[in-house]
Amino acid sequence: MGFVLFAWMNIMSETAFPISDRNRLKRAHERGSYDHATVFAILDSQMLCHVAYVIDGQPYCTPTLFWREGQTLYWHGSSASRMLRHLRVGTPTCLTVAQLDGLVLARSGFNHSANYRSAMCFGTARLVEDMALKEHALLAVVDRFYPNRSAALRAMTAQEIKATSVIAMPIEQASAKVRAKNVGDDEVDGQHPVWAGVLPVSTIVGAEQPSPALLAGLERPTNLDAYAPGRRLDEVLIEMQAAYEDAH
Amino acid sequence: MGFVLFAWMNIMSETAFPISDRNRLKRAHERGSYDHATVFAILDSQMLCHVAYVIDGQPYCTPTLFWREGQTLYWHGSSASRMLRHLRVGTPTCLTVAQLDGLVLARSGFNHSANYRSAMCFGTARLVEDMALKEHALLAVVDRFYPNRSAALRAMTAQEIKATSVIAMPIEQASAKVRAKNVGDDEVDGQHPVWAGVLPVSTIVGAEQPSPALLAGLERPTNLDAYAPGRRLDEVLIEMQAAYEDAH
Repeated sequence: MGFVLFAWMNIMSETAFPISDRNRLKRAHERGSYDHATVFAILDSQMLCHVAYVIDGQPYCTPTLFWREGQTLYWHGSSASRMLRHLRVGTPTCLTVAQLDGLVLARSGFNHSANYRSAMCFGTARLVEDMALKEHALLAVVDRFYPNRSAALRAMTAQEIKATSVIAMPIEQASAKVRAKNVGDDEVDGQHPVWAGVLPVSTIVGAEQPSPALLAGLERPTNLDAYAPGRRLDEVLIEMQAAYEDAH
Repeated sequence: MGFVLFAWMNIMSETAFPISDRNRLKRAHERGSYDHATVFAILDSQMLCHVAYVIDGQPYCTPTLFWREGQTLYWHGSSASRMLRHLRVGTPTCLTVAQLDGLVLARSGFNHSANYRSAMCFGTARLVEDMALKEHALLAVVDRFYPNRSAALRAMTAQEIKATSVIAMPIEQASAKVRAKNVGDDEVDGQHPVWAGVLPVSTIVGAEQPSPALLAGLERPTNLDAYAPGRRLDEVLIEMQAAYEDAH
């Protein structure tokens, strides 16, 4: 009866991920959240994730580009990749994104820290084998970052589609963890005479580097305007995700 | 006999990690390296890594701060953390760092890519239980990033040392993978009329945010000068590692 009630409550929660021992935050609970909105905002602010999976008891942590559609995360790779044979049947996976936002210098070693935003997502990763879904995904990975760009590209070939694996992982559970504040030791150690504070860091878009072989007369298209030099990449990527969701 | 020769060759190589199926690059070999120098330079350019480990068949991918001393990687965490019971006996671990350096826009979806620097390190992670080593590590995690800062801090307490776990992982094997160039499709698709090139990104230090409760008269110390606003964090961190190695 308790289990039935628990399952029912999980199904009824449409705005947060269910919590179990797998994704429950073990420490610094005040930094944590299980809300869809918080998890998605962190996922959408990045294009690079780290995927953990296990082959014969050995864990691997592979960095890769990823994207999100609804509650499913996607990434792709070569059809020759290491994890492929495990992905046909589905393999337990943890996909994490984390962004460093600042270095936190306290008056004690113990209270040194970092500002960051991270999201850990759990699920079963599987190959996308349906051809229509796979083609959709290979357009989405372009258009999610660069609005409508796929329509302007040289079309995909059957060989390219075959050579690319697309992996999908519906998010079963997730947690977000954020630290976004100044040092926390003012009250306990504030009288200790050492400088304390935050050195913020952010990832910034630089000046474009056009292909040296660019056809004469081709200007950078206006659908890349959001990637203006000096802008924060995380903010651009959140805008691009919103634009993609509006358009699809 | 073949095995003996192979083992001997690995031992004789003092500048590269041994290669096996675990760390051999499966694709894009031209981007890969097993040299200590290449792997260490990528590790030293970052303070955030992702650690993959397995508990009861479930992979976890945890972002955390880390540092390097020689061929050993260290990170720390709460003594209440999830992986602690596994760390007493030692657990197979993969520690990865990856940095996004640019968005690569090609004339086809297939050739879209990213510029990046990544290093995957394999080993067995274990708790540092020796007290002298643990205290050294807790000073190193400060001084590796902020030269000589630990001497100016409020001293560690026995309770703080007890509440902190330090984890060490000697690197058994590693691989580095780097893409650092413009689009690669000039010859095959250069005549297709769409803009192509790289949008570079970099992580930059911002203006300091002193603690609001900073004691009057405390200036930012000169040993933080390398973290000047506008500088690239990766370059600062490489300098700080070199300074730490010179001083210790």
